[in-house]
Amino acid sequence: MSEFELIARLRRRLGGIGADRLDLGIGDDAALWRPGPGLQVAACCDTLVQGRHFPDGTAPYDLGWKALAVNLSDLAAMGARPALALLALTLPGDPGEAWIEDFCAGWEVLAQPHRLALAGGDLTRGPVLTVTVTCLGELPPGTALRRAGAAVGDGVFVSGTLGDAAAALALWPRRAEPSLAPLLARLTRPTPRLALGRALRGLASAAIDVSDGLLADLRHLLAASGVGARIDADAVPRSALPEQLLGADAARACALAGGDDYELCFTVPAARAEALQAAAAAAATTVTRIGSVVAGPGLEVVDRDGVPVSLDRAGWDHFRA
Amino acid sequence: MSEFELIARLRRRLGGIGADRLDLGIGDDAALWRPGPGLQVAACCDTLVQGRHFPDGTAPYDLGWKALAVNLSDLAAMGARPALALLALTLPGDPGEAWIEDFCAGWEVLAQPHRLALAGGDLTRGPVLTVTVTCLGELPPGTALRRAGAAVGDGVFVSGTLGDAAAALALWPRRAEPSLAPLLARLTRPTPRLALGRALRGLASAAIDVSDGLLADLRHLLAASGVGARIDADAVPRSALPEQLLGADAARACALAGGDDYELCFTVPAARAEALQAAAAAAATTVTRIGSVVAGPGLEVVDRDGVPVSLDRAGWDHFRA
Repeated sequence: MSEFELIARLRRRLGGIGADRLDLGIGDDAALWRPGPGLQVAACCDTLVQGRHFPDGTAPYDLGWKALAVNLSDLAAMGARPALALLALTLPGDPGEAWIEDFCAGWEVLAQPHRLALAGGDLTRGPVLTVTVTCLGELPPGTALRRAGAAVGDGVFVSGTLGDAAAALALWPRRAEPSLAPLLARLTRPTPRLALGRALRGLASAAIDVSDGLLADLRHLLAASGVGARIDADAVPRSALPEQLLGADAARACALAGGDDYELCFTVPAARAEALQAAAAAAATTVTRIGSVVAGPGLEVVDRDGVPVSLDRAGWDHFRA
Repeated sequence: MSEFELIARLRRRLGGIGADRLDLGIGDDAALWRPGPGLQVAACCDTLVQGRHFPDGTAPYDLGWKALAVNLSDLAAMGARPALALLALTLPGDPGEAWIEDFCAGWEVLAQPHRLALAGGDLTRGPVLTVTVTCLGELPPGTALRRAGAAVGDGVFVSGTLGDAAAALALWPRRAEPSLAPLLARLTRPTPRLALGRALRGLASAAIDVSDGLLADLRHLLAASGVGARIDADAVPRSALPEQLLGADAARACALAGGDDYELCFTVPAARAEALQAAAAAAATTVTRIGSVVAGPGLEVVDRDGVPVSLDRAGWDHFRA
């Protein structure tokens, strides 16, 4: 397929979703869009490179899903509602019709419920499969969940469970085993917490999504807020499989330092704890308190007995990993 | 440098430009921005891959310039005013401080006059240097220059001169020769025609930027408009150097089919020809009439005597080049 045939196919396959939200979609020098009256635009962008951000052997369906999901997760962490995306796809050769169809199918499953419009992008050839997605969302000015804003005494919370994606990556060579399917789905098809993110507007004092690992991302939030935190490693919610398959220590390390979960980590003042539970229930998302914001810099991690937990892997720096 | 050191450097170096236009810039999960009251958002995205879209040996200054320029050119072709950019940079290793400084310097020269804010992006590692830039601009609703809109009898125009960038690429092995500097600058530091693009609002019936080659891009415009055109190959404005260095035939081929010039190609109704000249003068950009829009599909290229010109290279399809 030529570049133009590929564009025509993407347009035919995905151009209908949310098309009424755009003034002009795929096929011109730029797309045209008007955010809702008085709304603020949230803009983010994430790149996935084969062999680094997704393993060789990742299905195109999962890639289409994940490339969009990691961006929607950023919008979720701001409390924004997704509006449109631009897709920059670099392909090592003609991917073939089946590949494009599967990529689109994975993208569509996430885009459709949000009426997220594919507004444009760029198709290029290069030696390595690389997907960069830019997402624009909208929200009322002044309501965004920022990394800055956590205050001493606030509770530290996370959504869902952590560590499944890292466990799946550790078990990737065994990915054909049916029992691993739930873990693999967490790695390849993460669920951006969009409903929860919007529900946290006016409740959370700060928020971030967990992409690089809980400790690394929480440290970003704490640094931006100018505070510290003390968290209970044993309170961090986990599913049962990582411990069954990898043992207790590895499972805890996955939950604390593993990336790719795309849950939200956020802080909430004590006075809003009850409202938080109601908001989480309305968003059909579990939230768990894992610690407290404290004065001074730094992140202290203890176990259920209050004994400090030592960690040999503090997070994931893309340039050192 | 780690990912976070690189981000801190980009933020320090470029984060000040147009910062007052953003509600929230680099350093959170997404940037926050409000377009001017009642304005429409134009969004576009372009990827440059080393070895395909810029030759090995391209200076980081030129890459910083060009990655932004090709996107600003898309905004110019819509008649939009640039507001912000997101930068997704994939690097094969630690680029070093000098590289980042030079990249930023090239970016800055283009960004500063437009107060274009670097709002965010993503830094990743991958085997091939790849730059994807997303630009957002703004314009009054209903004023965008689209590819559709050209009508029979309209004049076909281009800005500046065409073919210099393709000539420079053909002469790339001789790039150290001082006499080639003006050509090389057209390839490595193209000038997006932003002032002209805005001046064409209300005048041009259709517009596109010339990135893949005049004939290929004009064909896109004609197809979107449902019309044809007849152009005079000898009327296409060219600088003197390509003919001196490559001969008359090659120079003409560069002007007709060579890419990377980032001039504008547009159509204007006869009744607005005078207003066009005034607008071009106000934008300090030369415009040249190269032909006319005709009924029916297709693009006819003739020489100054009206003899059809045969071309062995109709344009540039990234997936076949």
